[in-house]
Amino acid sequence: MSKAPRTAIVPTREEDYPEWYQQVVKAADLAENSDVRGCMVIKPYGYTIWENIQKNLDQMFKETGHRNAYFPLFIPKSYFEKEAEHVQGFAKECAVVTHSRLEDDGAGGLKVAGELTEPLIVRPTSETIIGASFAKWVQSYRDLPLLVNQWCNIVRWEMRTRMFLRTTEFLWQEGHTVHATREEAMEETRKMLDVYATFVEDYLALPVIKGEKTPGERFPGAINTYCIEAMMQDKKALQSGTSHFLGQNFAQASQIKFQNQNGVVEYAWTTSWGVSTRMIGALIMAHSDDNGLVLPPKIAPEQIVIIPIYKNDEDKKAVLEYTNSLAKEIKSLLYNDEKIRVLIDDKDLTSSERSWFWIKKGAPIRIEIGPKDLANNSVYMGTRTREPNEKSSITREEFLRNVVTELEQIQNSIYQKALNFRTNNSPNIDKTEDFFHYFSPINAEKPEIHGGFAHSHWCESEECENKIKEDLKVTIRCIPFEAIEEAGKCILCGKPSKRRVVFAKAY
Amino acid sequence: MSKAPRTAIVPTREEDYPEWYQQVVKAADLAENSDVRGCMVIKPYGYTIWENIQKNLDQMFKETGHRNAYFPLFIPKSYFEKEAEHVQGFAKECAVVTHSRLEDDGAGGLKVAGELTEPLIVRPTSETIIGASFAKWVQSYRDLPLLVNQWCNIVRWEMRTRMFLRTTEFLWQEGHTVHATREEAMEETRKMLDVYATFVEDYLALPVIKGEKTPGERFPGAINTYCIEAMMQDKKALQSGTSHFLGQNFAQASQIKFQNQNGVVEYAWTTSWGVSTRMIGALIMAHSDDNGLVLPPKIAPEQIVIIPIYKNDEDKKAVLEYTNSLAKEIKSLLYNDEKIRVLIDDKDLTSSERSWFWIKKGAPIRIEIGPKDLANNSVYMGTRTREPNEKSSITREEFLRNVVTELEQIQNSIYQKALNFRTNNSPNIDKTEDFFHYFSPINAEKPEIHGGFAHSHWCESEECENKIKEDLKVTIRCIPFEAIEEAGKCILCGKPSKRRVVFAKAY
Repeated sequence: MSKAPRTAIVPTREEDYPEWYQQVVKAADLAENSDVRGCMVIKPYGYTIWENIQKNLDQMFKETGHRNAYFPLFIPKSYFEKEAEHVQGFAKECAVVTHSRLEDDGAGGLKVAGELTEPLIVRPTSETIIGASFAKWVQSYRDLPLLVNQWCNIVRWEMRTRMFLRTTEFLWQEGHTVHATREEAMEETRKMLDVYATFVEDYLALPVIKGEKTPGERFPGAINTYCIEAMMQDKKALQSGTSHFLGQNFAQASQIKFQNQNGVVEYAWTTSWGVSTRMIGALIMAHSDDNGLVLPPKIAPEQIVIIPIYKNDEDKKAVLEYTNSLAKEIKSLLYNDEKIRVLIDDKDLTSSERSWFWIKKGAPIRIEIGPKDLANNSVYMGTRTREPNEKSSITREEFLRNVVTELEQIQNSIYQKALNFRTNNSPNIDKTEDFFHYFSPINAEKPEIHGGFAHSHWCESEECENKIKEDLKVTIRCIPFEAIEEAGKCILCGKPSKRRVVFAKAY
Repeated sequence: MSKAPRTAIVPTREEDYPEWYQQVVKAADLAENSDVRGCMVIKPYGYTIWENIQKNLDQMFKETGHRNAYFPLFIPKSYFEKEAEHVQGFAKECAVVTHSRLEDDGAGGLKVAGELTEPLIVRPTSETIIGASFAKWVQSYRDLPLLVNQWCNIVRWEMRTRMFLRTTEFLWQEGHTVHATREEAMEETRKMLDVYATFVEDYLALPVIKGEKTPGERFPGAINTYCIEAMMQDKKALQSGTSHFLGQNFAQASQIKFQNQNGVVEYAWTTSWGVSTRMIGALIMAHSDDNGLVLPPKIAPEQIVIIPIYKNDEDKKAVLEYTNSLAKEIKSLLYNDEKIRVLIDDKDLTSSERSWFWIKKGAPIRIEIGPKDLANNSVYMGTRTREPNEKSSITREEFLRNVVTELEQIQNSIYQKALNFRTNNSPNIDKTEDFFHYFSPINAEKPEIHGGFAHSHWCESEECENKIKEDLKVTIRCIPFEAIEEAGKCILCGKPSKRRVVFAKAY
């Protein structure tokens, strides 16, 4: 006889991590696969998380002087071909519009018609189409810096997709900026990486490593790519944001030129940077547990859910009155400079069913209110970061006095847990044998269980990087900004190295 | 010798209305045409207007119980074909993705490759793709109503495009809802039309006529289409929002079924409703004048612009100090429940140049601050709704005391002006001869100058509707909800009619 599952999510993380992920997405009602190849549907609860991400990031972009704009979805093939490395990087996975209408096929159906003279690429990223506008907008050093951002949808024809992490269509923001000097462009590239790191750590409660990509991992056409890397619970890395220093490559491709203060016309310096709905995948994989989603309060659609409990009409009236007045008092409090988001769940289900519903959806605080609480002027509270049954009764007054602090503590504890997990899985490794052992599957049936983030030396050769990638499916996630300069030997070839880099398997 | 232009916009509305429109868009730096056929670039100032529209409309949608979600950009051809009238309505103007990559053409270029087994339509509207999800989400009457909205981009392959008014790609929101009964769906359809009307009148300061479309003007596949119609300054109508009662047509096409309270499975009732970046076109064409854009304060990116004026460093320091403290005080005031949006324009241009810059961009209030104002503790103020030179000096204290009221008055006066214009150009016409005369060009060289909104009787026949359309290019904009029931005769055939409808030329 099989035992009843002891967790809300089946399978557990340990049993089957990839399938656990899909089940968490499903149980929290975040998204679903569509019939359109590789495209997902972001359901209302998942989209609200995206709205919270957008709202806060957008404010950070505006505070750093950026303004939003909107550019065409379609990129003429000829634009796309302007930057050689760039087109090579995206040509293999792009949706191409070739026709402009459907017409009767004479057999009761429709066939494509109106062939275009030039095919249009559905944007996989917008450097070339935005560059065409920037070339018109920038004439003089007085027009610089030009700091623009776009929130939009993007299409990359991925062969293996997974909700939020890798989909054919996804939502993102792409910042595009133009500067008069190399230094200013580099400063912008680094500044926006800092904005991403601050956001991911403060809002998503996810510690990140900031660093530089190796030449082989750069954005196609970039001089330098910087990234933030986070550790998931299967110890794989997930790149959560990138910022590219494009040098003058795209300025030359798009002819973005300006007259400098001495009257000389020169090419400008550009940057681009982006984060996407992939961040929601990171959020899920880093914090959730075997009972479902765990959401940091700052980003949760509902921060507090109140579950009224009653058995008859008389109780119902009194309980709902108490619940409504409590909700009103909670809403008058500010957490993270916003009114606390509170929801009363009065659905026709048992209190246990409603409680589990919100556990699976990751609501940070749950409150149950029954007739007894009215009598005692108390609330019965549980939090998502404690065990489902670990609930306690406190006075209403005490609850209201402490609830903001409680939310802050939940936010911090989620971050701390993720940080501890990363710290405990981030060894310095110096011997080749140890390195290979560290990344070799412990159990052949569970190839996803492997080491973590190995901080090891690397000789900076593409050969060693590629050999490790081929042998172990391990990549250099980044050369951390914080890496200390120290003498060492390449983990593979033994040649001298000046600093450790982060090796890991990755999404 | 030609006279210097006496207006900031050349040509004026009277000289060439369509060209005046393009020049206003350009002078205010709202948008530009791209090289991609029919696609526009929405520049930061134009996009900020869209953000203000989005923010306020989105709040109204949420207050009426709707939640945002996101569905795929691509619609498989087979989905699209499910509703016969629907596909007929959109097949002639849709972008079709047929390939998934580009590859070397052997001649140094790239050719399309990876042909798809089924072509994908870039969404011209999302009823069919959203219907596929709704069919999964709706099982029982307990799942209803389902109230969803999507903010996204849309592609319709238009042959003649004009910025904001008609472009191949545009931004919009599309609401999609599912209900258990015809009555509830109808109520939703009308409720959302009311939301649109309230928003357009309160925020865009644009009076609208709410009404029903004639059968020939309905959304393809809808049982009924309701609309709001506004009058532009060339007296043409612009449809500014539509709300569709879809009956069970799309529920049948997508198999959206539910078990009702009696356990019987039946088809659901659906609605859809949308507004787009076209509203920005309406805003421009309804309120702007021969000096450029006129923006209602509620929607203006900057509600107040302060122009500091100084001639030397000593003055500069004092003037900027005064300006900054004034801006700070303004920002502490609330207008329409938000902090007043104020900008200090300290660009290296003359005060007159800066003043005209903001006149063309439609900033509601301009303030000039020079050393004299510091001495008098005053501000020198002009508004966009008064003449450019009609400025007055008032004390700083008086300004701060009255500025919120001033913004309210500007908002109201813009609305009143548009309402008066419409009232003065909305006659009841009862004689066929008068009707034809009313819509005939007064001047053969200016065919755009014509009547206005004729309120006339119509026999409800498609024949008369089509004949008028062919002869005069005049359409029935709507059958107004407020039309009084009265006996009359069809303006064309003389047959009996029960109410007047609105005839006009339209965008």
